Order: sequence, then C-alpha cells, then structure tokens
Amino acid sequence: MFTLSPSLVTLLADIVGSEGVRTDPSSLEHYGKDWLKKFSAAPCCAVFPRTTKEVQDIVRLAITHKLKLVPSGGRTGLSGGATASHGEIILSLERMNRILEFDESGGLISVEAGVLTLTVHEYLAPQGLFFPIDFASKGSSMVGGNIATNAGGIRCIRWGTMRDWVLGLTVVTGNGDILNLNGKLVKNQSGYDLRGLFIGSEGTLGIITEAILKVTDLPGDTARILCGSQKAENFLQILARLRLHAKGLSMFEYFSHECLESLGEFGVTHDPFNETYPHYGLVEFEIDNSKERDSLEDLFSSFIEEELLDNVIISASRKQADELLAIRESIPEVLNSRALLHKNDISVPVSSIAHFLPVLRECLRDAYPTCRVAVFGHLGDGNLHVNVIMPSNISKKEFEIQSSEGDKKLFELISRWKGSISAEHGVGLLKKPYLHYCREEPEIQLMKSIKKILDPHLVLNPGKLFDL
Amino acid sequence: MFTLSPSLVTLLADIVGSEGVRTDPSSLEHYGKDWLKKFSAAPCCAVFPRTTKEVQDIVRLAITHKLKLVPSGGRTGLSGGATASHGEIILSLERMNRILEFDESGGLISVEAGVLTLTVHEYLAPQGLFFPIDFASKGSSMVGGNIATNAGGIRCIRWGTMRDWVLGLTVVTGNGDILNLNGKLVKNQSGYDLRGLFIGSEGTLGIITEAILKVTDLPGDTARILCGSQKAENFLQILARLRLHAKGLSMFEYFSHECLESLGEFGVTHDPFNETYPHYGLVEFEIDNSKERDSLEDLFSSFIEEELLDNVIISASRKQADELLAIRESIPEVLNSRALLHKNDISVPVSSIAHFLPVLRECLRDAYPTCRVAVFGHLGDGNLHVNVIMPSNISKKEFEIQSSEGDKKLFELISRWKGSISAEHGVGLLKKPYLHYCREEPEIQLMKSIKKILDPHLVLNPGKLFDL
Repeated sequence: MFTLSPSLVTLLADIVGSEGVRTDPSSLEHYGKDWLKKFSAAPCCAVFPRTTKEVQDIVRLAITHKLKLVPSGGRTGLSGGATASHGEIILSLERMNRILEFDESGGLISVEAGVLTLTVHEYLAPQGLFFPIDFASKGSSMVGGNIATNAGGIRCIRWGTMRDWVLGLTVVTGNGDILNLNGKLVKNQSGYDLRGLFIGSEGTLGIITEAILKVTDLPGDTARILCGSQKAENFLQILARLRLHAKGLSMFEYFSHECLESLGEFGVTHDPFNETYPHYGLVEFEIDNSKERDSLEDLFSSFIEEELLDNVIISASRKQADELLAIRESIPEVLNSRALLHKNDISVPVSSIAHFLPVLRECLRDAYPTCRVAVFGHLGDGNLHVNVIMPSNISKKEFEIQSSEGDKKLFELISRWKGSISAEHGVGLLKKPYLHYCREEPEIQLMKSIKKILDPHLVLNPGKLFDL
Repeated sequence: MFTLSPSLVTLLADIVGSEGVRTDPSSLEHYGKDWLKKFSAAPCCAVFPRTTKEVQDIVRLAITHKLKLVPSGGRTGLSGGATASHGEIILSLERMNRILEFDESGGLISVEAGVLTLTVHEYLAPQGLFFPIDFASKGSSMVGGNIATNAGGIRCIRWGTMRDWVLGLTVVTGNGDILNLNGKLVKNQSGYDLRGLFIGSEGTLGIITEAILKVTDLPGDTARILCGSQKAENFLQILARLRLHAKGLSMFEYFSHECLESLGEFGVTHDPFNETYPHYGLVEFEIDNSKERDSLEDLFSSFIEEELLDNVIISASRKQADELLAIRESIPEVLNSRALLHKNDISVPVSSIAHFLPVLRECLRDAYPTCRVAVFGHLGDGNLHVNVIMPSNISKKEFEIQSSEGDKKLFELISRWKGSISAEHGVGLLKKPYLHYCREEPEIQLMKSIKKILDPHLVLNPGKLFDL
C-alpha cells in the first residue's frame, strides 16, 4: 500500500479543502480503477478539486514534489486508462459537476468535466434538444472522460464521436498551463487545432476541466427494428440498402446469439422472438411521419421475402422501442459481470467488414477452439466488440495465456485489414503493448514527442498509452 | 532574384524528372504567390513531384542541403500562406491530381492533394453524391490546400469545415517521415489524433499528399431566398426563427449594399430587386417536397409582415437558384479585383453576433471615417469578411498606415468579444503579427514546440504562422 506524507496531504488540503482529500482504503480502492478491473488499485490518495485553478495548483504541486496524477472521471473505461496501481494521486473531477451555461442561440452547452453524460441528456430533453453521444454507461460516465477517450457509442453512424461535438475545451497541461481552446467559435483558423490533440489523449497530455459542447434537435420520433438472421453478412447488404433507400438511419447495431443467451442466463430478458437466430441486428431510424414508418415496414418485409432476414420486430410504441434498445444496452453490462471474459474492441474500414467477418470468425475459432465468443458492436461503423468467454474447464492462468496468444493473432489480422486495435475503448494500460499493430513507428515516436512537450515532468497518467 | 545552383537543380530533376523542375521567371512569378498579392514572389525554383515518395525525397534533399520549401496548391489563399518571397523552393502538388479510389459502400473518396475541389464535386454529382465543402474559388483551389487551411465556405452552417470531412491523411513531415494517418477508419481510438494537427496547419508541419474524404448524399432540391432588409440585426432574428421552424437550412449568407454596388460598378450584375436595401441575406434550404417549399414561402411572408424584411425573392427554378448564388459568389472575386482593398476575415461566437454587429460598425467608422466598407460573410457561423475600400483621395502609403492602425482597433475588439482574427483564411504571413489577439501565450508557445518537433530543420513554409 502506498501512502502520501502528511505534509503533502496538508498541501493538497490547502488547495481543495480538507474534505477534498481522501486517503481511506475504501476510497482508494473505489477511485483507483475503472471498469476493466484487471489491474489492482493502489493509489496513495484521491483529491477532488472544485475549479480549473485548483486543478492547476495540484498539477504545479505535483511538478514540484515529483508526484504522479491519474485524472479520473466516471471510470467506466475498459482499458485501464483511469487505473492508479503505483501509488499515484487520483485527481477526480467528481466535484466539478456544474452545468455552467446553456447558450440557446448558439446551440451550445458549457459544462464542467465531472458532469454525467446522462445529466446533459436530461438537461436538454425538456428543451427539445439532444446531445447525440449516447451509450449504455451514460449514467456513470462523465463528460471529461468521454472527451479524454473520444467516446463513440451507439449513434456514431449518424452523429459521429465526441470529437465532433466539442467546440471549446479548457485544459490544464502537464506543464501546469491553463489552455482555453477555441471557446464558442464555429470558425477559427488561427493556427493549430490543439483541442483535437487533447480529445482522445486519455489524460496523458492534460486534464480536461471544462467543455463547450454542441447540441442538436431532439429527433421527432424513433422507430427501432430488431432483426434475426442466419447470416451476419446479410446485415451488410441490408445496411447498404438502408443507406440508399431510407433516411434518418441513426443506429445499426449487431449482436451474436451468444450475447442474447448470456442475457437469458442472467435472467435479464427472455428471447424477444419465439425462436433463436445466430445473428441479430438492431436498427434505429429517426422518423418524421407515419409515411416514413410505412415505408420502413415495406423495406423490412422485402428483406424477409428475399431471405436476408428471418424475423423482424418493428417497435409500435415508445415503450417497445425502449425495450428493444434495453436488450442491446444490457449486453456489455451482463457480459462484464462475468468476471472471466477476454474483451477486444476492434474496427476495420466499413467497406471491408462484410469480407472481414468470416475471416474474423475463422481467426477466433483458431485462437479459441473451446471458447464461446460473444460478438456485438456497431456494424455501421466497422466496430466490433469481441468477448471471449472463459470456459469452466480451464484455469484463469491458462485462459490468460490463451488470450495473450489470441490477441496477437487477432491484432495481426487487424493490421493486415488496416484496422484499429482500439476503436473506442482507448489504449490505457491494456492495449499499450499492441499499439504498433495499428500505428506506425514514426507516429508512435511523434506521439511520444508530443507527450514530452505537454507533460515534460511526466506527471500525468504515467504508463498509459506508451512507455517513455 | 534568387537562383538555385545547377547541381541542386540536377538533384531535384533526378527525383521528379527534368520536366518537373522549373526556374523560368514566369513560372517563379506564377507559383510564387497566392491571391493575396501583397507580398512579392521570389522563389528560386518550382518543383512538381508526382508521388508521396517523391515529396519525401524532396524534403530529405531540403534537410540535407538546408533548403526551404513552400508547399503549394491552387494558391487561392488570402493570407500569403503559399507565398515564396525569400528564395524558397515551391513544392507544387499540381501533378498529384489523381482520384485514387471511390469507395461506394464506405462513402469515401481517396484523392491526391492536387485534385481540384471542383473535380471532386463533378466526380460525385452523377452518382448522386456530394462533397459539401463549397466556396467560390473551388475551380482553382486544391484539396490539399483546403485541408491545410481547414477551408470553410458557404455551407459550414450545415456541413462544418474541411476538418469534418477528412477521414484519412497521408503527410510528409518536415522530418521526411511519411505518415499514413487513420486510413478509412470511422472509429479509431488508438492514441493521439495526429490528423487534426495537420488539418489547418498551413503547410508548416507537413506536406499533405493524399486524403480520404467522406462524402454525403446530394440534396434532393434546393431553394434559395434572397432577402433585403433595413437592419442587419434582423437577419439574426430570422436565423433563430429558421433554426426553430424550418428543416434543412444549409446556408445563411450576408452582404452589405456596398458589395452589391461593387458588382454593379463592374457590370457583373444589376440589382436583383428594383430598389436597394442596406443589407442583404442569401438563405439556402435543402428541400424534400413542395410542402416544405410552401411552408418556407409562408415563413418568409411572415418576416415581411413583421417588417423584419423589406423584400424577398424565392428561387422558382434551379436556374434562378444558381443566379442568386452567383451574386453572392462573385462578391469576393469582384472586390478582390479592386487591388486597393484592405481585407479581414473575423469571427465571434454565433450568439454574440447580433450585439457585435453595431459595435463592429462603430469600430470601422472610427478607424476608417472616409472609407467605404463592404461586409459580407457567413452570418450563421459568426464569420464576417470585412473589406475596406481605399478611397481615391489618399495614397497607398496613407491607406496602409490607416489599415495598420485599423487592424489593431479591430483585433482589440475581436479579442474582447472572444473572437478570431482569422475565421477561415488562415494566418500565413498577413495575420502573423496579430495571432496573440486570439491565441493566448501558452498556446502560441505550444504551437511553436509542436512545429519544432515536426519540422526541426525548419524546412517547411518558413515564416508562416509565427517566427521561431
């Protein structure tokens, strides 16, 4: 166990108030890791600043006293990016949880980094407005963390990722500088875009303290369609057809029958169809009128006639639409509650994914001949979450060895297909050894050089992304 | 005049072929400057590579022989970013003008940097597809230059800027490294986004050689509405109302009566209305059906009833819609053809612009009491182009002194309003002395540090953006 000297605890308390410093074991355990749970929590302290200035003072203190800081949001990450395993100080943004301003005519909302993503949704909805970055963990994840990991989620096919919705950013760099980046400017071509560097940097370049987010109109109505099919590849034909013939496609999710089985085993849901299918799709449309709904029904009927799909449920009410989404959203949570799971979050070019899917299956069968594999994800973005379920007849150690070998096979495949080893979960600690499978050496060197500029004392989130 | 030693000319010709090196005075004059024309052209040579590898070889040669390179596209810039005034070598991307691949199912087009923006538009249109970055100079400007300056243009209100449409990027850095950034991945959270650093970097960090651009569907039909009003502020009320009550707003342009007068003086057009108004707006909508057109007509009729507008022309045909756009698009060209013009390209937060406009007018009256000022721009983005017309009764020297004083007043105002001194034209040489009015000192220092990493030998576009 790591401890911080009483004099340093006092110095931190001078900055954030004594209630803003915690060293009790349960806090250290709670704040010391993210949803990955693979790495154990061993911070020396957790500190809870209330303002950007206090964050700056903490960073300066860390520089002076050679301390290490792990920025911490909702810790819903799955790559260990918010883990403190080596006596670091957790810098939690939890108390910076205010909505600072709603700018109606600019279509902007200014928030502190510790605001929950769900809070942004709930604040905007009564005003007919919408923040389209949406995912199952939105009730726990914070805006700052979403930005630091460039969160994607279920509506990326229509709305992009967090990067597309951040207009302004306030950041405290590892140098202790406060940067106010871009503010509320829609157009600003005055030098390099530094904002974009911090978005997705996983807390290694600066601590995001405030953000100005763009918002859009709440969709009028939503139709969701659950589909069952014999072949995953059929969904790709359907996706292409929907892109051509239907407007308002806002979600195109995929999950394999193993995902639905897992839900059943945990009593979360019974199968929405009377029979099971190997592959499921969940499609969402923003619709303006009943004519659009009718034409969707026609389109999906024709998919059944053409035997692309075996079965379809089109939501007839808001309640049913919510239930269909809940099936998809509960998958990661239920799978995660199985401790013995090996996860990957990969992507390939959208136009490759039809050919890639059978090759992926082959690769997984080869690497994990005796394991069940639950695959789900955002098919329309080329992004799949691969979950290998540890079989009961091997030890954890054996499974780890198998997974480690399996990762190499998978990442070599990804590399050949010009894909990414981390589509949206980030690199953190978990994917660090594999970065070279999707980033070339000059890129990695450049990233390291940028890290050294913005965090020359190596104060911020040490050991994440790469070793220096 | 600067000359390059014959041995270096030979070394360049070894890379690009002898037809790819030019040292004749008319080529040097032609390629040595952009549309700004304020700075004189004095390169030593112009070189025309055909591949990324040749660009890399040229950069390496430049490093070895301590040469300076000015990357050059269509040179439609207005800030001197592509100017070579000190014996630099022009590196023109003109021969890298191939469309490399059209990826239909991914909705992507891969191009070399020297492809004209118009060529991309013309390639996609027959397939029902659309590249929404659009501006008057699209027939001359090249994709690489558009990316290097993060071009905005007339449809930013709906479609954003170039940054939003670049998926993958190939760049040769000042180190001579070739970076293949992101490829065709919609989701890729594997470390820092280096793409975003090069987009808008004005050729100071790397030479963009290829890009993978996203495309979207061609809008079904377009209605354009020209409006005349007594008050510019009224347009902001209208903009807010359109955002609430009408879908598909894709353009909201403004121009003052001085702009229209200039067109008349140059015989380009006669006034589309029978009378003149102090302020004009040009609004564009993407419309799906005649019902939407009817409701637009109702909406604009109500603006006239409420005396927000004095007159309105709603395009009744594609031809008329094109004519209305041509009025707006010819303004910069006609104004630019008046050599004696002092231009600025500024932005403020969209929600501030209604209050900002009268203050801006006051500032301009104060700074230029005897000058006509033509203002036009992208009101919906908070972006205005301010053009001060030199009066005939003062000398060029006197006008320059007045403009220099005027700039300081304008930029101080912009700084107080948290705006940008360059919304979309970039910094180049022209705005370099004023960068601190919209970027804070730690930001500028950080930009310089990043420059030194990516271009440690200071080979690329020397003297642009800032002095080191």
